[in-house]
Amino acid sequence: MRIAVIGLGLIGGSIALAARQRLGAEVVGTDIDPTIREAALAGGAVDRTCPTAAEAVQGANAAFVAVPVGGLPDAVGAVLKHAPQECVVSDVGSTKRAIVAAQADPRFVGGHPMAGLEHSGLRHARGDLFDDATWFLTPSDVSSNTLLERLRGLLETVGARPNVIDAESHDRLVAVLSHLPHVVANVLILQAEATLSPGLQTFSSAGPSFRDATRVAGAPAEIWADIYATNADKLALAVEDMVARLRAFQEALRSGDPAGIVTFIEVAATARARLEQGPR
Amino acid sequence: MRIAVIGLGLIGGSIALAARQRLGAEVVGTDIDPTIREAALAGGAVDRTCPTAAEAVQGANAAFVAVPVGGLPDAVGAVLKHAPQECVVSDVGSTKRAIVAAQADPRFVGGHPMAGLEHSGLRHARGDLFDDATWFLTPSDVSSNTLLERLRGLLETVGARPNVIDAESHDRLVAVLSHLPHVVANVLILQAEATLSPGLQTFSSAGPSFRDATRVAGAPAEIWADIYATNADKLALAVEDMVARLRAFQEALRSGDPAGIVTFIEVAATARARLEQGPR
Repeated sequence: MRIAVIGLGLIGGSIALAARQRLGAEVVGTDIDPTIREAALAGGAVDRTCPTAAEAVQGANAAFVAVPVGGLPDAVGAVLKHAPQECVVSDVGSTKRAIVAAQADPRFVGGHPMAGLEHSGLRHARGDLFDDATWFLTPSDVSSNTLLERLRGLLETVGARPNVIDAESHDRLVAVLSHLPHVVANVLILQAEATLSPGLQTFSSAGPSFRDATRVAGAPAEIWADIYATNADKLALAVEDMVARLRAFQEALRSGDPAGIVTFIEVAATARARLEQGPR
Repeated sequence: MRIAVIGLGLIGGSIALAARQRLGAEVVGTDIDPTIREAALAGGAVDRTCPTAAEAVQGANAAFVAVPVGGLPDAVGAVLKHAPQECVVSDVGSTKRAIVAAQADPRFVGGHPMAGLEHSGLRHARGDLFDDATWFLTPSDVSSNTLLERLRGLLETVGARPNVIDAESHDRLVAVLSHLPHVVANVLILQAEATLSPGLQTFSSAGPSFRDATRVAGAPAEIWADIYATNADKLALAVEDMVARLRAFQEALRSGDPAGIVTFIEVAATARARLEQGPR
């Protein structure tokens, strides 16, 4: 089995490592940056590299496009142009409607692994990054079922949990499960900076809840601006929902409604306990 | 040196352990629950126990009241009534204005360690819980400077970073650094539950940013309702500030303002980097 990986950052590099380690696949990698290609080869993430995607996908059984969301349409288009007839092509973008609508090709199945680190780049890549992580698959109306099933089996062998879902539902879900937590992390950081008094200018005065909630605030601006832009409508709705819930909480606070506050916390605690009853 | 600890939960138990391990103090503990007193003695958190605070503080050089915020006024009052003339009395409540205003006694200095776990209870107590953690001290106008300095030295020896601040500033700060992250964790959980579709009813579909941001959502409702109630005005203002920032972000999203989004993320990333330049 030959796997092509286009874009060797944290996610692409981790796919390459997992494919070699878990699938025993021959992995051909490419990256726009030649020093990254060299590092991937030297570090054992890939068996060989090519300077272009067109070359990397020659003879591949599967191809993963792991470039930032903003560059996906061009990169996936180039891969589909050169990939073999029976090669399943997927991506790892955080939003799915735009890319799935743009690629009406039976070989293309959108994808999105729910894994990541606060660090980016090949040097943080690891073969176990996707262990037990949900990996959303968003086929289009014309995607080949045979190729979808091949991709699903491949990801299961890698250790992930493939979950087939339509692109619309995916984007609504990640607006709440991923994009909104990132927005809130940024907002909390900005509020903290506006509130800290002289002599308290560092995180040393913050407890663990603040540090956890703001861990992702430093995520790369260019990448996330594209993610937000391709999911602007769903994310705006998620923000609207959050504002309404914050307003209701604020009203309970201001009107001195302790029972309302207790209920708010208890309902959330119950919901969390229920959500936790999953495999991870 | 003899230290009295009133309330042997996660924080009280950890103070007791740290006082024995780091100060070599004789620790006398009490708790309203006799089984907790026995467990503290059996587990080596305290040298001995007493059934009441009045007995526990006899001959003490310092007393820590580590009961939930709702029970603080009564508990601190009882300790001050029975503590020796030269005993410094402090608490560990998450809000400071109410308790500091209620106790006009030279021996009382409000306190609040910025440490904690998502778990509560004596069995999670550990002597290193406060290592490098900020420990706010909020003296009142009548607090003895001598006793404040004794308390500060004691906490430094325990491994914490004492930080003297007025109760008003403290409450404004923790509204943003602690209370708001808890509220947001609850809101995110409720939004997730309202958004997840059948077949995706668990955390397994959430990435690490969501799990981190919602880790504290299961915190005990009774304890947190009291904390919020004693800081309702500051917390309502912090919510107001968050809503305004979310609205501005939402407006940038809806108007398709990529530069505004990039700036929002970059300013937050810069602020985070600056805040991180602290000891922890």
